[in-house]
Amino acid sequence: MLAKIYITLKDGILDPPGKTVQQALTSLGYANVEDVRIGKYVLVRFKNGERTDLEDQTRQMCEKLLANPVIESFSFEIVENPEREK
Amino acid sequence: MLAKIYITLKDGILDPPGKTVQQALTSLGYANVEDVRIGKYVLVRFKNGERTDLEDQTRQMCEKLLANPVIESFSFEIVENPEREK
Repeated sequence: MLAKIYITLKDGILDPPGKTVQQALTSLGYANVEDVRIGKYVLVRFKNGERTDLEDQTRQMCEKLLANPVIESFSFEIVENPEREK
Repeated sequence: MLAKIYITLKDGILDPPGKTVQQALTSLGYANVEDVRIGKYVLVRFKNGERTDLEDQTRQMCEKLLANPVIESFSFEIVENPEREK
């Protein structure tokens, strides 16, 4: 089983790297880009475990270690029999 | 319209931050964690544009700027009327 975890900065938290990428895209000619935010995409592969247990475990791991709850939000999904990420 | 872009290291590319997180999770007691890989989750909000154009544009942006094609793979989806990411 594989947990796909998406960690994003909360609204209102400044994102200087995102702003830099936004400016770079604008200067490359992509004038319709309004906003860029950069978050983390964490893939956790489990040896074993039931889906409901893994959901609880993944939530705990995000709260304890992976995300900073003051400035970040997270969401995740548990995927079965994952094809290998390229 | 919002592009959700997932950028991951290719298989075989070492991921020291992922390894560090994996060890931290193991030492926190999550013994069933087999592997952790850390990628980027980039959200690009567009002012306007048709879905097919935005798909082409997003692919170009990934190839030119957002991903390093030597070591990274990317995938993305275009979402309409996005709820604001928290």
